[in-house]
Amino acid sequence: MAVFGIFLLLVLMNIGIDMMGGDYAPLEAVKGIETYLKANQSQNIHLSLFGNSEEITPLLAMYNISDSNYTVVHTPQVIDMHEPPTKAFKEKQQSSIAVGFSHLAAGATDAFISAGNTGAMLVGALFSIKAVEGVLRPTISSIIPKQNGGTGLLLDVGLNTDCKPEQLNQFALMGSVYSHTVLGVDCPKVGLLSIGEEESKGNLLTQAAYQLLKNNKSINFIGNIEGRDAFNDKADVIVCDGFTGNIILKMAESIFDIVKNQNIDNEYFNRFNFEVYGGTPVLGVSKPVIIGHGISQDVAFSNMIDVATKMVDTHVLTKVQEAIKGCSLL
Amino acid sequence: MAVFGIFLLLVLMNIGIDMMGGDYAPLEAVKGIETYLKANQSQNIHLSLFGNSEEITPLLAMYNISDSNYTVVHTPQVIDMHEPPTKAFKEKQQSSIAVGFSHLAAGATDAFISAGNTGAMLVGALFSIKAVEGVLRPTISSIIPKQNGGTGLLLDVGLNTDCKPEQLNQFALMGSVYSHTVLGVDCPKVGLLSIGEEESKGNLLTQAAYQLLKNNKSINFIGNIEGRDAFNDKADVIVCDGFTGNIILKMAESIFDIVKNQNIDNEYFNRFNFEVYGGTPVLGVSKPVIIGHGISQDVAFSNMIDVATKMVDTHVLTKVQEAIKGCSLL
Repeated sequence: MAVFGIFLLLVLMNIGIDMMGGDYAPLEAVKGIETYLKANQSQNIHLSLFGNSEEITPLLAMYNISDSNYTVVHTPQVIDMHEPPTKAFKEKQQSSIAVGFSHLAAGATDAFISAGNTGAMLVGALFSIKAVEGVLRPTISSIIPKQNGGTGLLLDVGLNTDCKPEQLNQFALMGSVYSHTVLGVDCPKVGLLSIGEEESKGNLLTQAAYQLLKNNKSINFIGNIEGRDAFNDKADVIVCDGFTGNIILKMAESIFDIVKNQNIDNEYFNRFNFEVYGGTPVLGVSKPVIIGHGISQDVAFSNMIDVATKMVDTHVLTKVQEAIKGCSLL
Repeated sequence: MAVFGIFLLLVLMNIGIDMMGGDYAPLEAVKGIETYLKANQSQNIHLSLFGNSEEITPLLAMYNISDSNYTVVHTPQVIDMHEPPTKAFKEKQQSSIAVGFSHLAAGATDAFISAGNTGAMLVGALFSIKAVEGVLRPTISSIIPKQNGGTGLLLDVGLNTDCKPEQLNQFALMGSVYSHTVLGVDCPKVGLLSIGEEESKGNLLTQAAYQLLKNNKSINFIGNIEGRDAFNDKADVIVCDGFTGNIILKMAESIFDIVKNQNIDNEYFNRFNFEVYGGTPVLGVSKPVIIGHGISQDVAFSNMIDVATKMVDTHVLTKVQEAIKGCSLL
């Protein structure tokens, strides 16, 4: 086992980054790489940087990033933030997002990060690396800052607007694996977001999902939780459809903006800053994909790299796959 | 017109209050009445107080409330907070809620307020005074504190968990009438709560509702809004299904609790305190019914009386009725 451990340490991890994605690309991506590398010098990580090399290379030099840390993969096209995702992904095969996914699919990189067109990233995730067998639909999740200092997980946050009860049951399982494996939560408590604690409360979807979750022996289901419980310690994994989850996520982000506008400097509310968490991991696909906010800046990029390395290191997606097959590692 | 104005001022308004409803009944209801009467001495308001007279009468005396202001209607039964609503309302015909509604239905009172069993209040509203003709389903709304100092309206907040697009269209109309008539908003902007600004974004319900709202000439529809827009000035009336609205409402309430727990004293966030607004008016029924939070204390009761008088004064429910018939007063 010791030999195996040493071997693992020497393996170089290759993280792909879309340098052209987001409102502040490529500058903030470069600054994020600098921030990450300064804080993680001992890591055996190589970065594959997808984008316009003429734009990127001088910036990397300006920020004194050693070229031993990265390879630039020149991509002449860019998918803009507001292009129709499927069409853009199909037609711009030389874009940073499309080339980034082709490297991921081919195994040249171990993870892929972008703060670019969210829809195109999802199309890429679904069509290039595909959903894991048995997964009805992949899901995207978000970290929730708990008042007690802990870290919750909310999913789905926008990929699946209309859900079937079976999907919510899978979100619960995938979220539990992520919470346990990446966030280090022991036996994560799963709460079904609803509008009353009793089993019979909620809408048609949550009423049906409740029964599935109750009978799911692979998760630690604690019942319904309410909107007031989003930030307390009732649940570690909060399950809902993507419509509800997206509204909660964006409302939480706006609370951070309001707190700032009110000139309140508070340690807990500072954790509402999305930059702290970096991005949204896609669960239910075979390889780590992190989707960042369009307004991501250096801290967000650095944290996205961090999340990607953790996902690779912990083999969380393999564990999700095994859990879906019924061999839960929880 | 001047004579008519004077005549109106002399008309006595009779507001019914369930003295037994809520966690702090009847003491906080009595204190709320004291608070209200102190601040509104010139109002021609009489209060019908439903509850156990042996409990209420000494308290009213203790708080020096003149008996010219009220009539106690003794009701020997109480519907508890967690009783099954329909059964309790049917079987406890001598309860403060049931008797309160019978007075409202008979015209003995002009409005009815309770911080008691929400379900029983809704059952009472639906069965005693009934929905207005043409209303698919009544709705309950909540005030939203805007960052710019204004007041938004969110509906539905929990009565209708699974909605049809036509219901959302009616919520928009009823909410617009309330916003204009009671909150004084000129030509209220209606936003459909969704997960993207574009017409095509959202779930199946909002996509279908968008088309109805766009073609509704009686409202000022401004398109989709997102979770991040809940507290800004994009919309004055935020329309959503009751599942989503209830989660938002309870999350907003929890933000107030968190702000307090973090020892932040901020004028804007203080407006997140539900007590400021008192209670939730039911729209789409023929007479004013205000449902309060179970934890309502004196300020909440006082504000509920205030909301009830405004609803009676402005004839908002008649205006809702006329709007539903197609004779919009907006």
